Amino acid sequence: MRDFSTDHRWLSINTATVRRQHGTEVPLPEIIEACARHGIRAISPWRDQVAAAGLDNVARLVKAHGLELSGYCRGGMFPYADEAGMKAARDDNRRAVDEACALKAACLVLVVGSLPGALAGKAAHKDIQLARNQVTDAIGELLDYAGSMGMPLAIEPLHPMYAADRACINTLEQALDVCDELDPMRSGALGVAVDVYHVWWDPKLKAQIARAGKDRLLAFHVCDWLTPTADLLNDRGMMGDGVIEIPKIRRWAEAQGFTGYSEVEIFSTGNWWQRGTDEILSTCIERHRSAV
Amino acid sequence: MRDFSTDHRWLSINTATVRRQHGTEVPLPEIIEACARHGIRAISPWRDQVAAAGLDNVARLVKAHGLELSGYCRGGMFPYADEAGMKAARDDNRRAVDEACALKAACLVLVVGSLPGALAGKAAHKDIQLARNQVTDAIGELLDYAGSMGMPLAIEPLHPMYAADRACINTLEQALDVCDELDPMRSGALGVAVDVYHVWWDPKLKAQIARAGKDRLLAFHVCDWLTPTADLLNDRGMMGDGVIEIPKIRRWAEAQGFTGYSEVEIFSTGNWWQRGTDEILSTCIERHRSAV
Repeated sequence: MRDFSTDHRWLSINTATVRRQHGTEVPLPEIIEACARHGIRAISPWRDQVAAAGLDNVARLVKAHGLELSGYCRGGMFPYADEAGMKAARDDNRRAVDEACALKAACLVLVVGSLPGALAGKAAHKDIQLARNQVTDAIGELLDYAGSMGMPLAIEPLHPMYAADRACINTLEQALDVCDELDPMRSGALGVAVDVYHVWWDPKLKAQIARAGKDRLLAFHVCDWLTPTADLLNDRGMMGDGVIEIPKIRRWAEAQGFTGYSEVEIFSTGNWWQRGTDEILSTCIERHRSAV
Repeated sequence: MRDFSTDHRWLSINTATVRRQHGTEVPLPEIIEACARHGIRAISPWRDQVAAAGLDNVARLVKAHGLELSGYCRGGMFPYADEAGMKAARDDNRRAVDEACALKAACLVLVVGSLPGALAGKAAHKDIQLARNQVTDAIGELLDYAGSMGMPLAIEPLHPMYAADRACINTLEQALDVCDELDPMRSGALGVAVDVYHVWWDPKLKAQIARAGKDRLLAFHVCDWLTPTADLLNDRGMMGDGVIEIPKIRRWAEAQGFTGYSEVEIFSTGNWWQRGTDEILSTCIERHRSAV
């Protein structure tokens, strides 16, 4: 396993980690400059942040600072209640691929969605199997487009507590079943994003990471699971502050040949989002060395 | 599948559903009398409620009202940080078996526990595999005792969001792996409690219910998953108010020959626990007929 203790060359910052300060949005260009100032070599920005700053502007800033994108957040939200919804999701995901290409991202991360309307509190139906079928079909279709553009798609299995509203792919095994179905030859165009927050609890995690193998391990995300966890979405912990055995999971991934970035993605309304960008980044660097 | 639409003879009330009113504890004898008044034939009480009311007293009341116990809540919390913790858990679980026998419960439900100390916010370690090994060993030991007393043990896989602090058995597949290991001959002494809240998201649920079969399906619990869910523990919904396809899951269980009670277990600080016992029970009866 790579030694992270002496530098942070394999640290990437998912820009959600520093996007809010005391309730105010921090513009992406500021985040990029802060990361560069801290010697951070990679980021993973969100589409709405990129849109607000302008795609060309962001591409220019990323290049000027010599940054890489460990991923681009995010495509997905595929399930639909009607034809118009299907078309809107397809078009939007193609645009996400285009943007990821413009930014030279390592992959487009897919948060696949689930019951249409559930995220707004009003599910159009309860048939999660239907949502899963729509997701598989939509990824298959997007794969043709993304493959032609050379942009790998990384399915991110989300914690089962998001199964109703954010993603109906909830285990690494399930994500890899989709990969096997859509890309049986392991072309490299389709794989998974392993976020320890979503998968740490899974008794089959080690076996499924081995099943994924190097060619399907496209991204590795870290944060920590706090006890207690105060909120289902926005109470993620800094690495080392919770109960996830992050180094053990990283070892499993690296045993398969994974050599990419360790991307920090923390949503934290009550704690980290109440602090300044420099403090958060300094802490990420320190914990990357000591707890990842 | 049994027709629940015309009566509620297969409704059981987990007494947690009505144990609090506006922050005040409702004594178990009051709950028992309310259930009897509503023509409910079965309950599943909690150990602390039984202790507060007195085991003999509760046994007498249950008998006087002709109630059955669809289960007894709960044994488990097996993982330990030291020898004393191991012994305390073992002794306490044997007492739980004794109480379940005194009350003639259909099974003792096991919420198996996870990282020692995590429920109090201070995990003694992060090694969930160690906790899982301790759980399997402890169930194996308890099985000898419970088997000799004729009390079936029902492992309840808990939602993965409780993996750190409440239960390190998080899928039906994992629970059945433990059953296979400890009771390969399917003696009937060890099985599972399927609570739709904990397992509804699982893409392998149908297959694992079939794997369980009639002899391992010892209990069936219902409530609903709300969108949004405001709290990890105490924001469970009334059947029909959320996104779980409860009848579909019940059909899968009954296709295996399950003929037991449908036990309503709702923890709801913000909604149901702010209402009166009669209103809650009436709603449970109505939803049992229309949404289960």
